[in-house]
Amino acid sequence: MAVLTTRSGGAFDRTPFEALVKRRLFYTPSFEIYRTASGFVGDTKGLFDYGPPGCALQANIVDTWRKHFVLEENMLEVDCTVLTPEEVFKTSGHVDKFSDWMCKDSKNGDYLRADHLIENVLEARLKGDKAARGVSTEEDKEKDNDPANAKKKKRAVKDVKVVKLDDDVAREYEEILARIDNYDGTELGQLIKKHDIRNPDGNNEVLPPVPFNLMFKTSIGPSSGSIGYLRPETAQGQFVNFKKLLEFNQGTMPFASASIGKSYRNEISPRTGLLRVREFLMAEVEHFVDPEGGKKHVRFDEVENMEVLLLDRHTQLAGNTETKVMTIGDAVKSKVIDNETLGYFVGRIHMFLEKIGVDMKKLRFRQHMANEMAHYAADCWDAELLTSYGWIECVGCADRSAYDLSVHSKRTGEALVVREAREHPLKIEEWQVDIDKKKLGPKFRKGAKAVEEAIEAVTQQQRETFHEILKKDGVITIDVPGLPEGKADLDKSLIDIVRRTRVENTRDYTPNVIEPSFGIGRILYCLLEHTYWHRPGDVARGVLSIPPLVAPTKVLLVPLSRSPEFKPYVKKLSSRLRTLGISHNVDDSSASIGKRYSRNDELGTPFGITVDFDTVKDETITLRERDTTKQVRASVDDVLGAVVNLVNGTEIWADVVKRLPEFVGQSEDE
Amino acid sequence: MAVLTTRSGGAFDRTPFEALVKRRLFYTPSFEIYRTASGFVGDTKGLFDYGPPGCALQANIVDTWRKHFVLEENMLEVDCTVLTPEEVFKTSGHVDKFSDWMCKDSKNGDYLRADHLIENVLEARLKGDKAARGVSTEEDKEKDNDPANAKKKKRAVKDVKVVKLDDDVAREYEEILARIDNYDGTELGQLIKKHDIRNPDGNNEVLPPVPFNLMFKTSIGPSSGSIGYLRPETAQGQFVNFKKLLEFNQGTMPFASASIGKSYRNEISPRTGLLRVREFLMAEVEHFVDPEGGKKHVRFDEVENMEVLLLDRHTQLAGNTETKVMTIGDAVKSKVIDNETLGYFVGRIHMFLEKIGVDMKKLRFRQHMANEMAHYAADCWDAELLTSYGWIECVGCADRSAYDLSVHSKRTGEALVVREAREHPLKIEEWQVDIDKKKLGPKFRKGAKAVEEAIEAVTQQQRETFHEILKKDGVITIDVPGLPEGKADLDKSLIDIVRRTRVENTRDYTPNVIEPSFGIGRILYCLLEHTYWHRPGDVARGVLSIPPLVAPTKVLLVPLSRSPEFKPYVKKLSSRLRTLGISHNVDDSSASIGKRYSRNDELGTPFGITVDFDTVKDETITLRERDTTKQVRASVDDVLGAVVNLVNGTEIWADVVKRLPEFVGQSEDE
Repeated sequence: MAVLTTRSGGAFDRTPFEALVKRRLFYTPSFEIYRTASGFVGDTKGLFDYGPPGCALQANIVDTWRKHFVLEENMLEVDCTVLTPEEVFKTSGHVDKFSDWMCKDSKNGDYLRADHLIENVLEARLKGDKAARGVSTEEDKEKDNDPANAKKKKRAVKDVKVVKLDDDVAREYEEILARIDNYDGTELGQLIKKHDIRNPDGNNEVLPPVPFNLMFKTSIGPSSGSIGYLRPETAQGQFVNFKKLLEFNQGTMPFASASIGKSYRNEISPRTGLLRVREFLMAEVEHFVDPEGGKKHVRFDEVENMEVLLLDRHTQLAGNTETKVMTIGDAVKSKVIDNETLGYFVGRIHMFLEKIGVDMKKLRFRQHMANEMAHYAADCWDAELLTSYGWIECVGCADRSAYDLSVHSKRTGEALVVREAREHPLKIEEWQVDIDKKKLGPKFRKGAKAVEEAIEAVTQQQRETFHEILKKDGVITIDVPGLPEGKADLDKSLIDIVRRTRVENTRDYTPNVIEPSFGIGRILYCLLEHTYWHRPGDVARGVLSIPPLVAPTKVLLVPLSRSPEFKPYVKKLSSRLRTLGISHNVDDSSASIGKRYSRNDELGTPFGITVDFDTVKDETITLRERDTTKQVRASVDDVLGAVVNLVNGTEIWADVVKRLPEFVGQSEDE
Repeated sequence: MAVLTTRSGGAFDRTPFEALVKRRLFYTPSFEIYRTASGFVGDTKGLFDYGPPGCALQANIVDTWRKHFVLEENMLEVDCTVLTPEEVFKTSGHVDKFSDWMCKDSKNGDYLRADHLIENVLEARLKGDKAARGVSTEEDKEKDNDPANAKKKKRAVKDVKVVKLDDDVAREYEEILARIDNYDGTELGQLIKKHDIRNPDGNNEVLPPVPFNLMFKTSIGPSSGSIGYLRPETAQGQFVNFKKLLEFNQGTMPFASASIGKSYRNEISPRTGLLRVREFLMAEVEHFVDPEGGKKHVRFDEVENMEVLLLDRHTQLAGNTETKVMTIGDAVKSKVIDNETLGYFVGRIHMFLEKIGVDMKKLRFRQHMANEMAHYAADCWDAELLTSYGWIECVGCADRSAYDLSVHSKRTGEALVVREAREHPLKIEEWQVDIDKKKLGPKFRKGAKAVEEAIEAVTQQQRETFHEILKKDGVITIDVPGLPEGKADLDKSLIDIVRRTRVENTRDYTPNVIEPSFGIGRILYCLLEHTYWHRPGDVARGVLSIPPLVAPTKVLLVPLSRSPEFKPYVKKLSSRLRTLGISHNVDDSSASIGKRYSRNDELGTPFGITVDFDTVKDETITLRERDTTKQVRASVDDVLGAVVNLVNGTEIWADVVKRLPEFVGQSEDE
């Protein structure tokens, strides 16, 4: 892997980054005061709370998502319950199949996720091998130059056993890692045996992998017999409401529903912060499309020429991870991406991630391998973002085919189909059976219904044969399992079989579903990593270059000092910003102006307005931009006008600097 | 109870109202296709999904809430997990006390909530009594005049046993009902026995009430030993993060945190639609305030003169439900409402409900009685809204005192306090113990620590006594449970006890919490009831007069017909509305214009823009207002300008009608 750099070109270092995120309360482990309490029994891993800036950032990402997907395409947004009766997930297949493979430590009873165990151990061995060969990556070299890393490096080397591997073994490890998501439980068990993989924590052997269902189970209502689960995805709520949504949409196809809400997965052993959590916010679209005609999309031309970085399943199965740049148009044409609608949403996802400030050099789309795909999917592409933990799946874009609607329809007996008027009525030549029910009833009495059903069940081919026999012999014999004698003789007075033309004016079909599914928390984490850097030479002065569109707070409003003459100006500006709908923080604490700016650089606040002595003289104020720390000075109206433009995205800072006078004044040093 | 009227003055009828809500998919029972599926086992009661208009209405209510509370007062919004380890709810008291009283039907095994059972049975008996006496309420009379109600009335009378009660018995029933929320399990059991209350469904006797805990239980992580619950309120997540929030707020008091999220209560037998559900959206504020100085609020003057309708606890305990109008200032002054901060939030709640369109004649604040109050509360006022189900608690406003922070602090050992610099340092005269540790150590060796702890634990009074003894005898004997001999002799060379003045420059205190807590789903339901009416004489033409601020969609955009010449105008207008950030629906279906207006009246869309033949001629469009059905006609710019003002609330329809020319054109009849 190439070195992970920040936007300033330096190496990304997770330690000061995590310290910043914690210090500014973007998020925090839930129930932290309990984790260290004496006698506390409980599992709080994989649970995180968002503090004020994290909460605002999350709300802004969700708001952008809603505008970009729901409003842009008039999707039908729904809000369905998390609590779901067992039967629904039995039908969808989640009760049987929504599991991860889990190994138990044979001695200390630890539970480990099998694929992660193998990954961790093999990656550690490969690292040890590199160390033994004296090969260091670009990343290692970069860090070597940073004295702050010396201690950490020493510790890291201690964790890794420096052992040289055979060339063949090293290659085998690399190939296993490229394919790691494609192994089933048996195969994972074999790999563990073959490569003597043990729990790194204590070096004990582990028991063979067993499936562990990831859904949280509970009981609904006062009787213990009603089992329920917390949904692991928002999709099923949308599927079971399909009929009502289609009706709400006045029967028109294609259409999409969308949902933003919490989902739950009982992860076996969550360790990587916000990236693997047990409770998380999802935003999902279910786009319903006619499976006939190649799943075209009417707006496909808007994404056709967009270039994306793809890692297809064939490449991965061959044991490597090389990506290629393709236009979405070419990818669909060459069937790398299965169809236009899937391709359209890959493009829309790409645009969304760019809009909120993801580093586009750190985005790829990876196709699922056959065994990796969820039990319902026909094709699936993940948008993966590169972080210090490697490539992280943040958005899934799956073609779920007609799977979900079909299984729910079958289980409930409710027709989850679209009835469409045929432009050209369909004419079907077929053998039809005419029964004289007035005679059939008296003849078979109680058995009449069984006879009738048996006749109706006869295939077209058999009907033709019966037609011939009836013409020749005047009577046919038909199997009727419902009668004591098991069959019935029917003569011409009772039955006739004739060839006729039937005209079908409508067509019923089960729509296929294309599902873009977003993990908001993962996206938020990656965005924080991607926008983090520090002022050159000063790791203590971190910055989050979050775009104004999603920044938690848009403006920091500060008086130069606590001098009382500034107060009325700050109050008036605050009220004007509120009227303009621009979120802002007032910081009138006694800290130096530099410290207050720094604090807000860490909060990702893009703009700063300062009230100083000149404000009192001539009613001008200064406007500071976070990334450049450059300032301009102008009248209140001009500055607020610029802020509105900057926040709405109708102007960029480079333009503002050109048209408003630069200000070089207050020092940012403390 | 007085007759429940709609805004047009007619009687509110729940049947066409519910049909409208269902038809327009505001909300719908969850998993409905499963409820009727053959062989389905599961409990889906109390679970509802929001369809597109309900989802948008909910989002707009939440958005208004966030602006009205969070942004207005710079509250610290957090998003905490629903999953909570058992220990947290053991500490908060929910594991022991968060229960309802439940009776089991002795024969058919039904579970019934005890207080609701008594209410239902006694109310039915009182109805039967009225019928027997030939007394009909205003409401009954009103309904009698409506032929649509004839059939329903007949059915209702059939359900009620027409039996005249003794005057005393009737009065007793009324008193029980006024106090119903104040009985504990034993008392409920006695009432059931005394009044021979049985399950109305089958008339079986019921077993004595037992407590049923309302929290959903689950297991977190792969080991079954880690019990967790779904939170029944968002509050605890805010309390356990108190220390971090205070720090984020740079130590400044008072401050508030806020949270918007789902909570869960495993209701015993939910029956009343959206009003009693098992999964619901809450919005809660935890306002932390210094308990000293009477819990004043700096903005109290803003609500002081506001008049509110109050039903205090004394009135209820006296067995009646008369309300009185008071200003909040008077209520606080006379201690009807305990303190300024509580009063301030009663006022803010009042303003919020008015803003979103609640009928203010149908709002009262009811105080909790002692037994009714949650285990943590010191005083509590509910904002109740009047509906066809009676008065419904929609917002609670509780003074939780220092309860929560104290119990969490005690359990975890984490100091959840505010440290405040004292303006005037506090001087405390006290007995201090000086120990010569250099001598104590060698003398008691392993026991030295126990001796030291025993000395430190001595009270001020004892210290004075010891001081005297030491002066007199030169040695004291102190109990030390940690020593084998259980005590220790300490002479003057080891210890001295002297009177000194200690100066405290800081003060530590546990803040009290004032908690306004909103059930968004209940508010949404009441708002729908309050804004529902139908065009005079035509129950089929329902209207929801939801204010523009929270209406699901602000504008309906329709071409007069499907004539292709209208298309480019509709497209352009749609794009301009999107740029203006005004949510709108285009309906270019073939239905008549009257039908399309009607559909949107039912969706609560306040404004309609029509493109017609004059638009093609002179680029003017019409603007229709939902409640009056009046229209104006003007240029595109003038109409869009008016729409922006109307939606932002800077102009009302009456003003628009005055300045733009009226239009009398397209008929609304079909």
